[in-house]
Amino acid sequence: MAFTCSVPAIPTVQQDDDTIRITRWDFEPGAVTGWHSHGWPYFVVMLVAGTLRIHDGTKTSDVPLAQGQAYMRPAGIEHDVMNGSDHPIAFVEIEVKQPGALKELALEKVSS
Amino acid sequence: MAFTCSVPAIPTVQQDDDTIRITRWDFEPGAVTGWHSHGWPYFVVMLVAGTLRIHDGTKTSDVPLAQGQAYMRPAGIEHDVMNGSDHPIAFVEIEVKQPGALKELALEKVSS
Repeated sequence: MAFTCSVPAIPTVQQDDDTIRITRWDFEPGAVTGWHSHGWPYFVVMLVAGTLRIHDGTKTSDVPLAQGQAYMRPAGIEHDVMNGSDHPIAFVEIEVKQPGALKELALEKVSS
Repeated sequence: MAFTCSVPAIPTVQQDDDTIRITRWDFEPGAVTGWHSHGWPYFVVMLVAGTLRIHDGTKTSDVPLAQGQAYMRPAGIEHDVMNGSDHPIAFVEIEVKQPGALKELALEKVSS
């Protein structure tokens, strides 16, 4: 079960190629992403302080985050994410589709 | 040659492990990182809108960026970065030390 809410978070894709996808997510208070599964490892960077309310399918948890706070998560996570704050929030999500391509970028450095 | 400026940008490290380093950088107007070389591929996410003034060793360029705007760069880049705005700015930098570790995270998903 996910959240019962009809207010969707608004995704704005900034970049989407073979290597990465960068998306800004804007949430009104109470807005949700909807239930989803992460196919790739990803980073989240909070643009404003706020509380993410996470539904993992069986229970919810509130995660207060500061402006600029960032974290990495592995592929495979399934959840629904709500803005548990009383104000609009936004974060940037960076999904790494091809970690191998990143590795090649790093190796270019070593060999040059 | 880098910028001639004695006002340093302020780094605040959020996470630093074998896989990634996450740093928030705060710049007063005119503050600089100082000349540096990127040893790993990295992401930048702007927390506020502003102009990054980049010195590549021979010339400068101004890059206006929106709040939330994000980009990826490969390892090997060398430059000095100044806040070219008339207000304080901040961004989050995510350096990927071990893209292979990210790849393993992705593979965990495939095999689970």
